[in-house]
Amino acid sequence: MSEANLNSLFDPKAVAIIGASGIPGKVGYSVVSNLLDAGYQGRILPVNPKGGEILGLPVVASIAELPPSLDLAVICIPPKYVIDALEALGKLSTRAVIVITAGFKEVGHEGYKLEEQLKEISSRYGMAVLGPNCLGLNNTGPGLNATFAAGTPPKGNIAFFSQSGALCTAILDWALGENIGFSKFVSLGNKAVLDESDMLDYLRDDPETQVILGYVESVEDGQRFARVARDVTPHKPVIMIKSGTTSAGAKAASSHTGAMAGSEQAYGAAFNQAGIIRVRDVAMLFNLAQAFSTQPLPAGPNLAIVTNSGGPGIMAADVTEQSALLMASISAKTVDTLMQALPPFASLYNPIDIIGDADAERYRVTLEAVVKDELVSSILVMLTPTASAEIEKTAQAIIDVTKGCGKPVFACFMGQQRVAPGRRILQEAGIPCYAFPEPAIRSIEAMYKYQLWRTRPAPVEVCYRRDKNRASKVLETARGNGCVEIVEFQAQDLLKAYELPVPQTELARTSDAAVKAAKRIGYPVVLKIASPHISHKSDVGGVRVGLEDEAAVRSAFLDVTSRAARLRKDASITGCLVQSMAPKGSKEVIIGFKRDPQFGALIMFGLGGIYVEVLKDIAFRLAPLSMDDAAEMIREIKSYPLLRGVRGEPPVDFKTIEDILLTMSQLAQDFPDIYEAEFNPVLVNHEGAVVADVRVTLCTGA
Amino acid sequence: MSEANLNSLFDPKAVAIIGASGIPGKVGYSVVSNLLDAGYQGRILPVNPKGGEILGLPVVASIAELPPSLDLAVICIPPKYVIDALEALGKLSTRAVIVITAGFKEVGHEGYKLEEQLKEISSRYGMAVLGPNCLGLNNTGPGLNATFAAGTPPKGNIAFFSQSGALCTAILDWALGENIGFSKFVSLGNKAVLDESDMLDYLRDDPETQVILGYVESVEDGQRFARVARDVTPHKPVIMIKSGTTSAGAKAASSHTGAMAGSEQAYGAAFNQAGIIRVRDVAMLFNLAQAFSTQPLPAGPNLAIVTNSGGPGIMAADVTEQSALLMASISAKTVDTLMQALPPFASLYNPIDIIGDADAERYRVTLEAVVKDELVSSILVMLTPTASAEIEKTAQAIIDVTKGCGKPVFACFMGQQRVAPGRRILQEAGIPCYAFPEPAIRSIEAMYKYQLWRTRPAPVEVCYRRDKNRASKVLETARGNGCVEIVEFQAQDLLKAYELPVPQTELARTSDAAVKAAKRIGYPVVLKIASPHISHKSDVGGVRVGLEDEAAVRSAFLDVTSRAARLRKDASITGCLVQSMAPKGSKEVIIGFKRDPQFGALIMFGLGGIYVEVLKDIAFRLAPLSMDDAAEMIREIKSYPLLRGVRGEPPVDFKTIEDILLTMSQLAQDFPDIYEAEFNPVLVNHEGAVVADVRVTLCTGA
Repeated sequence: MSEANLNSLFDPKAVAIIGASGIPGKVGYSVVSNLLDAGYQGRILPVNPKGGEILGLPVVASIAELPPSLDLAVICIPPKYVIDALEALGKLSTRAVIVITAGFKEVGHEGYKLEEQLKEISSRYGMAVLGPNCLGLNNTGPGLNATFAAGTPPKGNIAFFSQSGALCTAILDWALGENIGFSKFVSLGNKAVLDESDMLDYLRDDPETQVILGYVESVEDGQRFARVARDVTPHKPVIMIKSGTTSAGAKAASSHTGAMAGSEQAYGAAFNQAGIIRVRDVAMLFNLAQAFSTQPLPAGPNLAIVTNSGGPGIMAADVTEQSALLMASISAKTVDTLMQALPPFASLYNPIDIIGDADAERYRVTLEAVVKDELVSSILVMLTPTASAEIEKTAQAIIDVTKGCGKPVFACFMGQQRVAPGRRILQEAGIPCYAFPEPAIRSIEAMYKYQLWRTRPAPVEVCYRRDKNRASKVLETARGNGCVEIVEFQAQDLLKAYELPVPQTELARTSDAAVKAAKRIGYPVVLKIASPHISHKSDVGGVRVGLEDEAAVRSAFLDVTSRAARLRKDASITGCLVQSMAPKGSKEVIIGFKRDPQFGALIMFGLGGIYVEVLKDIAFRLAPLSMDDAAEMIREIKSYPLLRGVRGEPPVDFKTIEDILLTMSQLAQDFPDIYEAEFNPVLVNHEGAVVADVRVTLCTGA
Repeated sequence: MSEANLNSLFDPKAVAIIGASGIPGKVGYSVVSNLLDAGYQGRILPVNPKGGEILGLPVVASIAELPPSLDLAVICIPPKYVIDALEALGKLSTRAVIVITAGFKEVGHEGYKLEEQLKEISSRYGMAVLGPNCLGLNNTGPGLNATFAAGTPPKGNIAFFSQSGALCTAILDWALGENIGFSKFVSLGNKAVLDESDMLDYLRDDPETQVILGYVESVEDGQRFARVARDVTPHKPVIMIKSGTTSAGAKAASSHTGAMAGSEQAYGAAFNQAGIIRVRDVAMLFNLAQAFSTQPLPAGPNLAIVTNSGGPGIMAADVTEQSALLMASISAKTVDTLMQALPPFASLYNPIDIIGDADAERYRVTLEAVVKDELVSSILVMLTPTASAEIEKTAQAIIDVTKGCGKPVFACFMGQQRVAPGRRILQEAGIPCYAFPEPAIRSIEAMYKYQLWRTRPAPVEVCYRRDKNRASKVLETARGNGCVEIVEFQAQDLLKAYELPVPQTELARTSDAAVKAAKRIGYPVVLKIASPHISHKSDVGGVRVGLEDEAAVRSAFLDVTSRAARLRKDASITGCLVQSMAPKGSKEVIIGFKRDPQFGALIMFGLGGIYVEVLKDIAFRLAPLSMDDAAEMIREIKSYPLLRGVRGEPPVDFKTIEDILLTMSQLAQDFPDIYEAEFNPVLVNHEGAVVADVRVTLCTGA
């Protein structure tokens, strides 16, 4: 969608309301009255065949009578009239339309057809369309409340978009209750045309927006979404909820908007790689919105806790330890200062416990020292309403001392009745204040991680140019032979084209040939059944390892081939592969990818066997992998210590595994018609790695 | 502490305030005024040498002038006078004392000595003492607000005790703000005499208490605590926070009250086995307090969600899937009813989405059907403030329809400003209502798990009576020899005394003897160095497996003994042990115990090698184990599927592992002077198990 059209949507000079109404309670009434109440200064053009006037505004009798090249029209007429209205607006070169009307894709086949028509008209006229089935859009700057929701949120620096209109109403109600300001408020509805990626793209450069919040149930064009998001997150934090993550959730999602939820792993990888801050619930969305919109980012992980009570201080320290943050070491200078200022039984180390009889002044002197401490990168001030607590004065002291200190400051005033006025004072001064330490610490943690993300070195994306032609030929040949799976010998050719390390392998059609091959390769060897029709070799007893001499090879050859012939009468058996044994002391890892319908190739890494199968200890990333991605994947699995070496073992050759991961990523990008590929096992020891077995599955029905 | 004395503490006929004051702001003033404000009907006896009257009450000039056998005295005089006051009260046969005064153990050595004196006096006179260093005690029934806190909570059915006085003030403030009623409110302070176990014991039979909340940082007598708690939880839910769980937290804890935090694993096992509902933060403590005090327990795991908006419904389904609850299947009958009653695009399956234009009436008819559905065991009603939402009427409809339905009903009204009145109506009617689905679902989950706990079959504790004398002799002999560790051959004798399966083993002092032993045992065999001074045999190359013939045994014997002699010149080498090889296809598990200073023997179970060492995949329970405990331990580790068998393997012999676990528990109880014992590895396959190696460490300095 063109930028100009999005500008028309968000900042129109004039707005027509198709289906405007003079009857309170009707959607077409609410939209007009919301525009007026929010102080929108552009032209408001209510359209209704009945004519007359609505809320003092003259009514336009039909779309045809609207001015041409109108910036924005809001449609709130029954679904059966929507298509004609859009067509008429298109003819007038209207730039942007919000379709509030429901009754499209979400109601089944008839609605689906209507929505397809809507898309077609949007595309034909190059008209930006928000919705259908949405609550509308609110841009608080120019007072454009083009929604039918009750109330207008205060102006602020937070933008919010949501696939769920109902969630918009809930967030709006929260914003009104907490007096939280918003810059933009967008209900995406069915996302027939404009979606979350368009919003991210627009909001990146919106000077009024500092923090972006989003709620999605599904993403259609995952690759675009990931790309756009990665472009935004270095500039502004993007905090999102993706719901429908579990099977029950996904089931509810598909019956809700007819959207198919993509695989959770792909979403996880996409959010992670794009630097999106993913939260699991609305409470955390709120907390982070406040944190990022009011506080600076912490320069480091070191949190200082100042408290007037030991117990809550301990609880806060527990939460901190379980987070990415560290309990700050307090500098000797600060300790000295505090020792002068605080009573003898105060605890000068972190948590700094200024004890139960602390008044506001004691908070003030403590904070003055802590704020200046260079070992402290963020501060949490806790207060419990003891008999001596000066709640409001303490709130004011926190504000005075920490103003402009450049470090994030959060407060936790535990309780409800007595602490409420203090909490309010802090909130109004832009210091988030909670009833419990957890949300504060989790917020600082998210800010710290975001700071790391922003300041990380630019990812290095490698682009291996290997013998793509040779690989192409392997795939073509397989397709030519009617195969959907490429295994073993054919697949080895593919690996060689990508210069992947493979075990020395020869195909032997007779036991004699096998013996000769073994001699060339060197004992001990492995023997594997070779057949284009047998992919699970072990199932037919088709693998023998550790064959030490000629006799063993000969007897294994005869045994393996005859058994396979007996068990799989349909299979044509080429012979056996003779392979060098695994490197000594090697470990099995699995490297693979699968093409996700939304996000493209999803690369996986894990330790072979039960680690992947039983313990599900797997790392995922979307292709293309950066060098950092590859390094991180290996290190994020729980069984990573096994690769680093236990009990004095040397670490495995990480560089080679990273290289294989990056090559897998390249392969996935080079050949979109590979649906799935798996190197399993890749055998790795401290000296190197070999891809011992491989299976490639081609896309069908393309 | 005697029950009578606890009754005097909680429900005294008269209360003396030692250090009563007429000056507002003083603790001795607050206690008197709180007693008056709370409407306490017993005698109030302010004690102050200045005499006169305080708040209209005549002042007693000294303790000696108080009546004898007084029920309760509250001490709030400086610490140096406390001991004399206690002595005087003891002489008068005072039954219970609350020492509010601080300046004891928590301030260092001098205070520690004072606290020891306090304990001695309490014990000598059989006087119940609460504190020192506490906020006091509030029993709302008789209006006994013997605290210096600001405000009295409303009467209710929740009891709360806390090691942190500051947390008491926070909870009190919350109770006042939310109008949550309490039965008892106890600040334990330093717990010199009365502790959490006394509270649990008393509250079990307190008719005014239905839900028990507690906050502890440490527990001194863990075994008593676990026993008392296990006795209470079948009758009333006990919901507790144990803080200081992480190293930072524990560090803060030890500098806070001088209490040493026990090991986290022991606390975890104790809470789990006692049926205590452990929560991590105060927010969840509040939520569960409300849930258990207002709603019935769910009969099953099946949660129905009714919502007027899809998105939030999906989020709730996500949370449900990640909990122990299940999304209820809605019965055909209910679906039929709803199909009649709801508009065409409503979703009749769970989450039941009655869509955005739902009014209160639509909630009513839906809930009427869902409440009656036998497949539904709990209900969450969600509302977002859409334009059509009738917030207060919906709240009322929920109350009307669900009253007395016998199933737990929770509400989630998302937002803040518009939904606030509806939330208030529900809260006042005893239906917990949150801004987000998560706390509601987590509360129902906790209630469901508690219901399972209450209704579980009584645990079967086995008590193996094996050859304890023979085992005793092994330990005595070892001690006699000056050994602290018992390994290998000696330890095998211990195992045999407990009829544990051991591999066939013979001690060989010469290579000839080793060859003869191997012949008797049957090849292949294992050879292990035998020396009372070498416990880590592998470190000296002292283990050889898979020895196939006479020559191999002979050469291994010479090699192993000479190498050990060279590497460990200090060790006397007895020879080698010749052992049968591990059963075919066997897996390694580790079974051990360690004596925790607070909780006694903590039994552990895990898969051998990296599963325990690297992945920390371990289950813990306190001895004595019930049969269920043993079975659960094996099944709760993540690598359990490996024992159940992967890729067509048969499951291992679980009965024998359970038996070894139970025997370990018995051993731990039979011999308190064993500090640590470990069977590592226990080799188990589908046919049985053997304890292949063992190490027992005796307590020192006993």
